[in-house]
Amino acid sequence: MAVVVQNIERADQSVIDRLAACGVATVHEAQGRKGLLASYMRPIYPGARLAASAVTISAPPGDNWMLHVAIEQLKAGDILLLAPTSPCEDGYFGDLLATSAQARGCKGLIIDAGVRDVVDLTQMKFPVWSKAVYAQGTVKETLGSVNIPVVCAGAYVRPGDVIVADDDGVCVVAREEAEAVANKAEARVAAEEDKRKRLAAGELGLDIYDMRGKLAEKGLKYI
Amino acid sequence: MAVVVQNIERADQSVIDRLAACGVATVHEAQGRKGLLASYMRPIYPGARLAASAVTISAPPGDNWMLHVAIEQLKAGDILLLAPTSPCEDGYFGDLLATSAQARGCKGLIIDAGVRDVVDLTQMKFPVWSKAVYAQGTVKETLGSVNIPVVCAGAYVRPGDVIVADDDGVCVVAREEAEAVANKAEARVAAEEDKRKRLAAGELGLDIYDMRGKLAEKGLKYI
Amino acid sequence: MAVVVQNIERADQSVIDRLAACGVATVHEAQGRKGLLASYMRPIYPGARLAASAVTISAPPGDNWMLHVAIEQLKAGDILLLAPTSPCEDGYFGDLLATSAQARGCKGLIIDAGVRDVVDLTQMKFPVWSKAVYAQGTVKETLGSVNIPVVCAGAYVRPGDVIVADDDGVCVVAREEAEAVANKAEARVAAEEDKRKRLAAGELGLDIYDMRGKLAEKGLKYI
Amino acid sequence: MAVVVQNIERADQSVIDRLAACGVATVHEAQGRKGLLASYMRPIYPGARLAASAVTISAPPGDNWMLHVAIEQLKAGDILLLAPTSPCEDGYFGDLLATSAQARGCKGLIIDAGVRDVVDLTQMKFPVWSKAVYAQGTVKETLGSVNIPVVCAGAYVRPGDVIVADDDGVCVVAREEAEAVANKAEARVAAEEDKRKRLAAGELGLDIYDMRGKLAEKGLKYI
Amino acid sequence: MAVVVQNIERADQSVIDRLAACGVATVHEAQGRKGLLASYMRPIYPGARLAASAVTISAPPGDNWMLHVAIEQLKAGDILLLAPTSPCEDGYFGDLLATSAQARGCKGLIIDAGVRDVVDLTQMKFPVWSKAVYAQGTVKETLGSVNIPVVCAGAYVRPGDVIVADDDGVCVVAREEAEAVANKAEARVAAEEDKRKRLAAGELGLDIYDMRGKLAEKGLKYI
Amino acid sequence: MAVVVQNIERADQSVIDRLAACGVATVHEAQGRKGLLASYMRPIYPGARLAASAVTISAPPGDNWMLHVAIEQLKAGDILLLAPTSPCEDGYFGDLLATSAQARGCKGLIIDAGVRDVVDLTQMKFPVWSKAVYAQGTVKETLGSVNIPVVCAGAYVRPGDVIVADDDGVCVVAREEAEAVANKAEARVAAEEDKRKRLAAGELGLDIYDMRGKLAEKGLKYI
Repeated sequence: MAVVVQNIERADQSVIDRLAACGVATVHEAQGRKGLLASYMRPIYPGARLAASAVTISAPPGDNWMLHVAIEQLKAGDILLLAPTSPCEDGYFGDLLATSAQARGCKGLIIDAGVRDVVDLTQMKFPVWSKAVYAQGTVKETLGSVNIPVVCAGAYVRPGDVIVADDDGVCVVAREEAEAVANKAEARVAAEEDKRKRLAAGELGLDIYDMRGKLAEKGLKYI
Repeated sequence: MAVVVQNIERADQSVIDRLAACGVATVHEAQGRKGLLASYMRPIYPGARLAASAVTISAPPGDNWMLHVAIEQLKAGDILLLAPTSPCEDGYFGDLLATSAQARGCKGLIIDAGVRDVVDLTQMKFPVWSKAVYAQGTVKETLGSVNIPVVCAGAYVRPGDVIVADDDGVCVVAREEAEAVANKAEARVAAEEDKRKRLAAGELGLDIYDMRGKLAEKGLKYI
Repeated sequence: MAVVVQNIERADQSVIDRLAACGVATVHEAQGRKGLLASYMRPIYPGARLAASAVTISAPPGDNWMLHVAIEQLKAGDILLLAPTSPCEDGYFGDLLATSAQARGCKGLIIDAGVRDVVDLTQMKFPVWSKAVYAQGTVKETLGSVNIPVVCAGAYVRPGDVIVADDDGVCVVAREEAEAVANKAEARVAAEEDKRKRLAAGELGLDIYDMRGKLAEKGLKYI
Repeated sequence: MAVVVQNIERADQSVIDRLAACGVATVHEAQGRKGLLASYMRPIYPGARLAASAVTISAPPGDNWMLHVAIEQLKAGDILLLAPTSPCEDGYFGDLLATSAQARGCKGLIIDAGVRDVVDLTQMKFPVWSKAVYAQGTVKETLGSVNIPVVCAGAYVRPGDVIVADDDGVCVVAREEAEAVANKAEARVAAEEDKRKRLAAGELGLDIYDMRGKLAEKGLKYI
Repeated sequence: MAVVVQNIERADQSVIDRLAACGVATVHEAQGRKGLLASYMRPIYPGARLAASAVTISAPPGDNWMLHVAIEQLKAGDILLLAPTSPCEDGYFGDLLATSAQARGCKGLIIDAGVRDVVDLTQMKFPVWSKAVYAQGTVKETLGSVNIPVVCAGAYVRPGDVIVADDDGVCVVAREEAEAVANKAEARVAAEEDKRKRLAAGELGLDIYDMRGKLAEKGLKYI
Repeated sequence: MAVVVQNIERADQSVIDRLAACGVATVHEAQGRKGLLASYMRPIYPGARLAASAVTISAPPGDNWMLHVAIEQLKAGDILLLAPTSPCEDGYFGDLLATSAQARGCKGLIIDAGVRDVVDLTQMKFPVWSKAVYAQGTVKETLGSVNIPVVCAGAYVRPGDVIVADDDGVCVVAREEAEAVANKAEARVAAEEDKRKRLAAGELGLDIYDMRGKLAEKGLKYI
């Protein structure tokens, strides 16, 4: 049952970069409001924004052995994503693993558990979105799997899916849909520019989006 | 049942400014330790401090339609305050709504739910105190109300009440009590100055507040 | 039952300083992965790192009287540690108490409850690790104890034990074990240096730690 | 600031009884989906259903003194409702207070905190809806108020408002609206009877409520 | 994006019945310790045990429209399973919907949100495993989907997968694996019988499972 | 570091029985309101009440190996008490372990984690107070310790301390203090009898405890 899938497909790097430029909120909207990880997944420092292909890890609670296995599977530009098999906030990951991952070109970590050495990780500019910051150490005793589909913080993620992460949180885009989503996301960005200008000039959303009639029809009363 | 109250009374701007200068902890003490919102209401960036008149919003979970309605009701110097009708952490508010609100003179947002686009809001210096940062999008289908009394994060807030917010959290002051509270709060600030100097010089609270006798009487034993 | 223990033993200052230099995650590992406080204990500002002898406080919910009593018991280099007798997030501590504590040489506060005036505390460089930031005021009516053993955020702490705290959280080291733990922690730091270099050069943990055989033996399949 | 309001108005007993008969879910719907207390307010034993006039209590965390004060204010058929001034789960109430309250005709307790002696309370058939079952004792040191408006578990409750409680939770009905709400609630009950029969016979809500057209119009696709 | 998939495959009824007989804990173990829903999913009354094919529902927060749509898709012996698109504990489901579902042969409901009318549902013997009991009403405004894959309480569920539920919680078994899992689960039950007898007679697991050598080898010291 | 302490001292059985008769709330009060475990520790079925000597277990998250080791250390009348080394709700314990423990005379389990097979445990009348009911399986790979002091659900427990548990929760009494606490607890029970009668007859606590003067002195106003 414990497997390492060595060859996974990834989205096109140019598509990944376009998704990164759009950011989490826009990408989430562009793909029909799906794919968000839970709001408790917070960055260890503000200001990071990225998109990357997921190398997924299913690991037992309190056991970080499979992170070592997963690092070998990384290609430059990937991101590690770990889902424990039951709720856990132990610190699976710290500065040594980050050094190793960064040496292999890894862009960060998404972990539905804890992380530690956050001062070092911040200095290394190795971004992590996690459920907790917690120094609690882990063991290396029980196998898990690498590059199998997992549920991470409430979202279903398959290896090679695109992870978009910024200060708003984390979103997953199915690899096959990445290009279509990037197209829609960029269209949203463009469309928002015009609206932003009009709103900044004092026009109301009520008028720009022509809402007054529908509000009245639904029964809204001004008193 | 869905109403927009268009004319609300506000406290005097000079009183509002005096409350802002005193800060949340002092204002809360000055009014008899009441009016605090729950501790989970955190600012999206550190360092903001303000006081403003509340334009209140009661909205269904996952539906931000009434924010558009509320923005029209803003006067310069107001703050938006949204309470969902059941617990929700969706991202009701982002950079476009903030642009619109800011164009109308709005000073910020208090929301017992989620917010998104926090990088943009930080750059715009549009402060938000929220329950969550969450990119989850919302719909515009169901009416709510604007400028009715609401319970927001455990505090009862009426339209036009004064909201004081800083890094310690959020406090509401009843409009009619705002001036009296400002007077008491300023008196506290003044009184604390002297105590701070004595404490900084090494005097003990035990002596300044004359506590030793009462402690002994209650039965405290030194061993 | 309410007592103040006036003379407590402390670890050697040089040992305390060595523990501070190693940091929470290393110290926690060095002492066999024990002594961590719960992950909800977060610093009010990033970047503080310290070790200090605990002056412990057991206090009723919503009553900060014993903090005044405890401050008199501080020696320079100590840290205050407060555990409420039932769960509470009220703001027991603010800028006046911090001024007093700092004047007595206190290095910070660990509190399984709330803190307020965090802007002031940050400016004073008075670090606090707490369960909540909450302006809620407290009373001075009911006795507690100072310098008795307490359970704080899930860890057992006796007066004079060494508290190590940084951005990863808070760890307690038994006073009698402090020197042995410092020795082991420093050995860990030294040993990690070599590993960090090899990992940074692209060597894999799988090889450095010779894991491949054990993984295969446990049944890990590469596909 | 600490007051006991001795004369409060109550709704008509016959109206209160009619609300009890309708139950929480129906009453909540009948008054426009407002007034529900948080879902964490759970009964200590299943099967109780009641409606009663609220005698409200605002009490400090961990201090049950005002319960003794409030019991004197009870009239037969009332219910006690306690909101702590900050979050607390201590056991404010046990079998002795229940004996006293029951002797005064009190029908139960709503408490946004803890309760204890639940075996005794169950035997006494004294129902309690609480946030926690917790044996933690409380003190009698600090005043609060009786029969002032409070926010209890997220709902605004004024003395004399009608509390409806059953296994679905707790709902408050404004005293002035009690009769109108009872009328609407009974109408709902009557209307539901017909629907229940049709649904039990296998008719679909899609047809009974004529939803198919609107679903298609919104874009629902059957595949 | 809003779709209703009308024809789904289901596992064999005989296999489903065998899984029900084994119960959640055994089935979860038999399939390699995967597929459990979160521990907060609790039954509204004790003693129910079932297995059934999932008719899945993805619904917006606070909107139960798609439940009406889903009921039409039920075949006798199915179970409804609802996952909201963002965290929500509103009461999507009550006695009328249960009457309708039961009339169509539905065996129960799994809902990562709230349920109401629990007294009626208990009397009807309509079991529900939910995140909350909450009377909060919902609207019928926004589309969702029926019979698409969802993440429900942390588990990935596809339409037609087998849901096993009892007082220990809820587990999902992939439809294609149902028979193999049933075989393994029954083998576990059989194997446990012998162990239960030996343990009941006072033999120790340490001896039955031959653990003493491995414990000593790992370094366990008896003192 | 992993040890099994084989000989522990226990309190006198007659004292243990007297504590059981008094129950959790009374014992907790009698020993000065200390020793309570967190309110999230709930019984798997109502109505159990016991006192017993603790055989303590410190175990890694998701690893139940040490339960097998601990069962060998049980004497008739003991109770197992397990504290994980980091937060965990996995199901460490089920019907087979209960069968084994019960065969050795064990009276129940206190576990700051999860339990499963609750239907069987209820039928066996094997009471458990736990943080969660969760079928999640565990491994047997990493050592822990038996009969060392632990922090369990916020309380410090040493092997041989007396655990008192009923529907109000769980309380620990230090072995050396057990007799004194039993004396005080029985005195409380006796004293309460008289008060209960007077309260049942309608006398007020305000009068029985002579509170009116102190309330007035503190400033309570009747209006």
